[in-house]
Amino acid sequence: MSQGYSVAILGATGAVGRRMIKQLAQSTIPVKSLKLLASSRSAGTELAFKGQKLVVEETTPESFAGVDLVLSSAGGAVSKRFLPEAVKRGAVCVDNTSAFRMDPEVPLVVPEVNPDALAHHHGIIANPNCSTIQMMVALEPIRKAFGLKQIIVSTYQAASGAGQSALNELYQEAQDYLDGKEMHAAILPTKGEAKHYPLAFNLLPQIDVLEDSGYSHEEWKMIHETKKIMLGDMNAKDIKVTATCVRVPVPIAHGESVYFTVEDQTATVEDLWKVLQKAPGVVLEDDIKHQVYPQPINAVGKRETFVGRVRPDYENPGAFNMWVVSDNLLKGAAWNTVQIAEYLVDRDLL
Amino acid sequence: MSQGYSVAILGATGAVGRRMIKQLAQSTIPVKSLKLLASSRSAGTELAFKGQKLVVEETTPESFAGVDLVLSSAGGAVSKRFLPEAVKRGAVCVDNTSAFRMDPEVPLVVPEVNPDALAHHHGIIANPNCSTIQMMVALEPIRKAFGLKQIIVSTYQAASGAGQSALNELYQEAQDYLDGKEMHAAILPTKGEAKHYPLAFNLLPQIDVLEDSGYSHEEWKMIHETKKIMLGDMNAKDIKVTATCVRVPVPIAHGESVYFTVEDQTATVEDLWKVLQKAPGVVLEDDIKHQVYPQPINAVGKRETFVGRVRPDYENPGAFNMWVVSDNLLKGAAWNTVQIAEYLVDRDLL
Repeated sequence: MSQGYSVAILGATGAVGRRMIKQLAQSTIPVKSLKLLASSRSAGTELAFKGQKLVVEETTPESFAGVDLVLSSAGGAVSKRFLPEAVKRGAVCVDNTSAFRMDPEVPLVVPEVNPDALAHHHGIIANPNCSTIQMMVALEPIRKAFGLKQIIVSTYQAASGAGQSALNELYQEAQDYLDGKEMHAAILPTKGEAKHYPLAFNLLPQIDVLEDSGYSHEEWKMIHETKKIMLGDMNAKDIKVTATCVRVPVPIAHGESVYFTVEDQTATVEDLWKVLQKAPGVVLEDDIKHQVYPQPINAVGKRETFVGRVRPDYENPGAFNMWVVSDNLLKGAAWNTVQIAEYLVDRDLL
Repeated sequence: MSQGYSVAILGATGAVGRRMIKQLAQSTIPVKSLKLLASSRSAGTELAFKGQKLVVEETTPESFAGVDLVLSSAGGAVSKRFLPEAVKRGAVCVDNTSAFRMDPEVPLVVPEVNPDALAHHHGIIANPNCSTIQMMVALEPIRKAFGLKQIIVSTYQAASGAGQSALNELYQEAQDYLDGKEMHAAILPTKGEAKHYPLAFNLLPQIDVLEDSGYSHEEWKMIHETKKIMLGDMNAKDIKVTATCVRVPVPIAHGESVYFTVEDQTATVEDLWKVLQKAPGVVLEDDIKHQVYPQPINAVGKRETFVGRVRPDYENPGAFNMWVVSDNLLKGAAWNTVQIAEYLVDRDLL
C-alpha cells in the first residue's frame, strides 16, 4: 500500500486519544488519511495531526468504511459495540480497553515481549493494562535470561490512569486543600462507584472495582494479563503473580515496587543490570551513589520504561526487589498501541 | 511518687515534639513538672501544656538535673550527646531517634508487641522507626496466632516523616506546580544529601541514605528493627524480611503494602480478620463491598493502626496481602514514645 493507510482513532478527545494522535504522527506508519472519532458530545472538536486541523466526528458503524487501522481508547463498552463493526468492514483494530483482553482469540501484546502473538490475530489486538505493560517490559528480559518463578507487585499509580477528568479532579482537590477548603471527590477511586474519595495528599488502595475475591479488578488484570502475555494463557501456573494496586496523588507515570524470584539462583544484581542495559524499551537508572533512580516527574513524555533500585533479597537466593516507572499514557497506552500498529505494518499483518 | 514525675521533652518544637506534648497531656502519666528543651535556635519559643504556657529552654547537660523521664525526638546526634547525660543524672529516656535502636543493651519497644523488653532497660529505651511500628502492630497478632515466616513490604511514606520543614517544602512545591512555576527542593529526599528532588506530584524511592548493600537506611531499619522487636535479635533468621521504602506526596500517615507468609497454611482471611479485630491498637477497616479501607486522610490524629484489603495470595498457601495505614507522627513517633512511658510508670520501671 504505497500511499499509506487509512487510520481511525476512536476516543480521540481523551487523554490517551490525544496522545495516540501525536504518537501516530511520530511513528513509521504511512498515514494516507486520519479520521478522529468520539461520542456525539465531543464531535466538532478540532484537533491537529501533523500541522493539519481535523474535526472530530461522531462514531457510527459506517465511520469505519474504508478504514484499514483503528486505534481505540474510548472505554470498554464503546469498543465492544464498534470494533466488531470495524472488523466487519475490513479494518484491523488495536484496542486500549479491557473489552477483549481475556478473549483467547485476541492477542494481548507488548511488542518487546510477545510480538509473535500478532501473527494470529482475527482483526482485534488488545493493548494490555498500563500497569501490566511496564512491568512486562522490565521483567521479560529477566525471565528470558534467568527464568521467572514469582512476582509480588505493589503499584503507585497516577491519577491520569482514570482519565483526564480524574487528573483535573486531583488538581482541583490539591488547590482546595492548600487553600484550607474542603475537597470534593466525584470521580476517583472509580467512576460509577457508590463512594468517591479525595486523592490529593491521600492514597486510595482501590483501582477499578473491588471483586468478591478480595482483589480489585486492576489487581486481577495485573495477575492474569501477565500470565497471558508471558505464558500465552491467563491461568498459567508457571509464574505465580500477586498484586496490590494503589492510586497515588501523581498526575502522570506509574511507579511499581516489584519483588520477583528467578529460577537461576546464581543470578546477581550485576547480571540483572547487564540484561536490563540491553533490554528493548528499558532505561536502567540505577546509580545509588549519585542518587539516580526512576521518578515519575522524569518519565513523563518518554516512551521507555525506567528501572532502578535493583537489590537482592539477601535472605532468599534468586529473589530481588526493583523499582519501575513509566508514562502510563504513553508506554502504558498510546505508545504501546501505536507500537503494535507499527509491528502490524512492518510484518504486513494489516 | 504521689505528686507525679518531672518530665523533659527534648526536641519540643519539632513536628514530633509538639505532638509529644499533646500526647503527654492526654496520657495517664502524672506530670509534676514539664521542661521543654530544644536547640539555642528554638529557645524562647512558647508552647502550651494543659493550658499552661511554657518557655522552651536551650538544652545543656544540667537541664536534666532532677528530671525523672525524658522523651526525646531531636535527632540522632542530639540524643547521642545528651541522653547519657540525662541517664547519669538519674533520668529514664525514651528516645525517638535511631541513635540507640541497634544497641543490644537498649530495648526497642512497641508496647503492643514486646512490652516485656522494658524490664531490662539501662536508662534508655528506643522507639522504633515509624514505618516499622505500624507494621509490627498489624503483624504481631498474626504472628502470635499463625506463626510468621516472611515479610515483603512496600511503603508509601508521608513527607512529615522527614520533619516539619519537609512538610512545608511539599506544600510549597505543590502550590508552585499548580501555579505553573518551577518546583525547588532543598530538603527531600534526605537532609544533607548531595541532590534534592521535588516530592509534590512525584514519588521518591529514597528514604534516608542509600547504602552499599543497595538498600536505603530506612529499608535496613525496617528489616533489622522488625527482627529485634519480634525475635529479640536484629539478625535473627526465623522471619525473613525485605522492604522497599518510597516517599509519596502525602503530608501525614504512612501506607504500607505488606505481603506476608504464615506457618499455619490453613489460615484463612476470616481467621486473620478475627485476630485483627481483637488485636490491641488495631482498627480493622476491611469491607470492600462498601469501599471501606484505610486511607491516610482518615488516620491523621488517631493513635491506632488501620488494616484493610486483607487477601490471600491464591497461588501460595499461607501467603497474604494487606494494606496498613497509621499516623507516622503519633503511633509512628509521639504516641508510641508516650505509650512506652505509660508502661514504665504502670510497671514502676522509672
